[in-house]
Amino acid sequence: MHTPVSGFRFAAVASGIRKDGRIDTALAVADGPAVAAGLVTRNRVKAAPIVVASERLRAGSLRGVLVNSGCANACTGEAGLLAAKRATAAVAAELGVGEELIVPASTGVIGAVLPAEKIVARSGDLVRALSPAGVDDFALAICTTDRWPKVAEAVVEGPGGAARVLGIAKGAGMIHPDVGPPQATMLVFLFTDAKIPQSELARVLEPAGDRTFNAVTVDGDTSTNDLVLALASGASGVTPSGDALGAAFERVCRELARSMVKDGEGAQHVVDVCVSGLATEAEAREVARTVATSLLVKTALFGNDANWGRLLAAAGRAGVAFDPRRAGVRIAGVEIVRGGVTLGADAEAQAQKRMADAVEYAVELELGGGPGRFTYVTSDLGHGYIDVNAGYRS
Amino acid sequence: MHTPVSGFRFAAVASGIRKDGRIDTALAVADGPAVAAGLVTRNRVKAAPIVVASERLRAGSLRGVLVNSGCANACTGEAGLLAAKRATAAVAAELGVGEELIVPASTGVIGAVLPAEKIVARSGDLVRALSPAGVDDFALAICTTDRWPKVAEAVVEGPGGAARVLGIAKGAGMIHPDVGPPQATMLVFLFTDAKIPQSELARVLEPAGDRTFNAVTVDGDTSTNDLVLALASGASGVTPSGDALGAAFERVCRELARSMVKDGEGAQHVVDVCVSGLATEAEAREVARTVATSLLVKTALFGNDANWGRLLAAAGRAGVAFDPRRAGVRIAGVEIVRGGVTLGADAEAQAQKRMADAVEYAVELELGGGPGRFTYVTSDLGHGYIDVNAGYRS
Repeated sequence: MHTPVSGFRFAAVASGIRKDGRIDTALAVADGPAVAAGLVTRNRVKAAPIVVASERLRAGSLRGVLVNSGCANACTGEAGLLAAKRATAAVAAELGVGEELIVPASTGVIGAVLPAEKIVARSGDLVRALSPAGVDDFALAICTTDRWPKVAEAVVEGPGGAARVLGIAKGAGMIHPDVGPPQATMLVFLFTDAKIPQSELARVLEPAGDRTFNAVTVDGDTSTNDLVLALASGASGVTPSGDALGAAFERVCRELARSMVKDGEGAQHVVDVCVSGLATEAEAREVARTVATSLLVKTALFGNDANWGRLLAAAGRAGVAFDPRRAGVRIAGVEIVRGGVTLGADAEAQAQKRMADAVEYAVELELGGGPGRFTYVTSDLGHGYIDVNAGYRS
Repeated sequence: MHTPVSGFRFAAVASGIRKDGRIDTALAVADGPAVAAGLVTRNRVKAAPIVVASERLRAGSLRGVLVNSGCANACTGEAGLLAAKRATAAVAAELGVGEELIVPASTGVIGAVLPAEKIVARSGDLVRALSPAGVDDFALAICTTDRWPKVAEAVVEGPGGAARVLGIAKGAGMIHPDVGPPQATMLVFLFTDAKIPQSELARVLEPAGDRTFNAVTVDGDTSTNDLVLALASGASGVTPSGDALGAAFERVCRELARSMVKDGEGAQHVVDVCVSGLATEAEAREVARTVATSLLVKTALFGNDANWGRLLAAAGRAGVAFDPRRAGVRIAGVEIVRGGVTLGADAEAQAQKRMADAVEYAVELELGGGPGRFTYVTSDLGHGYIDVNAGYRS
C-alpha cells in the first residue's frame, strides 16, 4: 500500500462502463481548494474530457478529478461534452462543491459517448468511499491494457520540513505523448501536499513532463486524451523552492514514464536510446526519437538482433547532419561499431546475448564530437503488440 | 515474358552472395551511351553503391547498371566503396567500356561489405548472358523479401511513332522512400527507348518519383540504399515531349509503387488513404502520411477494424489545423462518420465486412471544405511483418 499525501482522499468503484465488471471509475479529491496545473495533448482531435478539463484548469484551483477507464469519450461531439459535464456535476453535488472544480479524464475506446448515467448512479457510493488510503484502488481503476498499476513517490525538502509528491499514471499503448500547457491514453496525476503558488506549479510542471513523458514511446501514436494534472493541497505547510519541486516532479514522472514503456503492449524490453555527439540537444533528440520509433529497430529489438545497420539507417533519416564514418554504436554495453564499421561478428554475438538476457539495456549511438545528447526510452515491438491492437475493440 | 525495350539487354546470374543459391546479380546494359538521371535516398547514411552511383550519375550518360541482392553494402566505410568499384570495374572490362559508365546498386543486409570477388568471378558469364529477353531474370535477381518480381510498362507517343518505358523494381520492407535528385531497399530502374535530352529526363523523373514512391509506405523506414535510375537509349528514334514521357514514367512508377505496398512484408491489404478538404496539398499530404504510417491505424487495418477513432486521432497529431467537428470518414465506400461523430454500429459493421472481403480499398478522410487533397498508399501491419523483421538476419 502506498503512503497517502496529506490533504487528499481517493476512491474507486465499478460503474459498469467496462464490460468485465472491474473497477472503472476513480475519484481523487482535495480536502480544500487545491492549486492546479495541467498539460494536455497537443493532438488537434481532443477528447471531450480534455476540452472540459482545459476550460476548468484555467482558474488554477480545483477540488478534484474524476477518471474513468473503458471509454475515452473522444470524437463524440456535443453529446460527449454534455456527458463529461453530467458525470462531474453529479460527483460535485455529492461533494457539495461547484461542478467547475472537478475535472474529468477518460481513457478507453474512442468514438463512444461516456455513459454518464452509470457514473451518476454510483456517484454517492464513490464519494462515500473516499479515503486517504484509496491510492491503490484509484491507480487500478484507471488502467486499461496496463498489466500493472503505476505509482511513484518522492519527497521534497523545504524550509521547516518535507513535502511529498505522489504520482499515479496509466498507459501502455497509444503512447507517444506530446503534451503541452493545457492528450491521454496516458493519464498522469501528481498530488503534492507542498504549499506552492499556482504560477510556480505551472512553471515546473511543463519541463518535468517534457523531459520525461515526451521522451518515451511505445508506438509513436499520440492520443486524443493525454493529460498530466498536478494538484497541490498545501496541507504539509511546507513551501519548497519551485526548482526542488520541479526536480521531484521530474523524478516521479521519469519513474512513471519508464513503467509505461516497460508495460508497452507486448513489450519484453525497455531500451534507452542514447544519442550523443551532435551539435545540439534538439538534434540529438530528433535522432533519438527517430531511432526509438523506427519499426525496423523495434522489431530487431524484439528479435534480440544487434542490428546496428537499422540503427544507423534510422538515425540517417532524421534530417540531422552527421558523418556516418565517425559513428560508434554500443548495445547493452558492448561496443559493436567504431568509425562507422562493424567490429565483427564476435562483438555482435556478445551484444545479442546480453540483449536476450536483459530486461532493460541501452543502445548508445555516438555520432560525432559535439555536445548535444538526448535519451529516448522505447520498447521492443512484437506479436503481443499486434494481438493487442488488431483486436482491441472486439 | 515482358517485351524488351529497344537498345537494352539484361541478364542475371547466381554469384553466391545469397546463401540460398538463387540468382542474385543482375546487369542491364545499353547498346550505346544512354542518357541517365537518378534519384537517391535522402537518408544521411548512404550505402557505398549510392555514393558511387551518385558520382557517376553526374556525367548524365551511362552504359548500364550492376545490381546485387543479398548484401546492401551499407555502413561499410572505405572497404564498401572499393568493393562497389571493383565489381563494376570487372563488368565494365568484360563489356569493354569505362568503369565510370556502370553504376552499382545493392540491396540486402546492412553492415556487410559486398563480396566483390564473387561478382568478379561471374562477370564474364553475366555479360555473355545479356539478352533483350533477360528482363524477367533481372527483375527476379534483385528481389529480397519480395514475394513477386515487379515490372510495369507504358507506351509514350511522340512525333513519328511511339517509344516504350519499362520499369523494374524491388521492395517490400524498409519501404518509406524519400528520394531526391542524387536510398534503396527500394530499387527502381526505368528503361526507355525514347530519344530525350538529359536535362529533360532529369526534370521529369523527380516529380514522377515524388508523386508515387514518396507517397507509399510499408513501415515508415527510409532505406540507406533507395535508388531510382532512368536510362534512355534513344533507340526508338522517337522524341516525345518531356511532359508525355513524365506522364508515362508516373504511370509506370505508380504501378510499381503499388505493387511494393501490396507486397509489403506480411501485408494482406493495399489501402489508399485519401485526405481531402484541407487548405493545401502539402497539409493534406502531411495528414495522409501521418495516418498511413500510424501503427495503431495499420494494426486496425490488419484486424479489419473500422476504427475511425484511430484514424482521426492520427490525423489530429499531424500538426495540421482542422475542425474535428466537420470530419467525415468513409471506409471501403461506406460512410461511417459525419460531422465528427459515428453514424452507428450498422455502418461500421458494413465497413468491416467490406474491409475483410477486399484486398484493396480506400480510407477517405474529409476534413473540411478546402481544396487540398492527397492520397498515400499503405498496407496493414500484422504478425507477418514481425516474423519477417524480427528474424531477418538469422
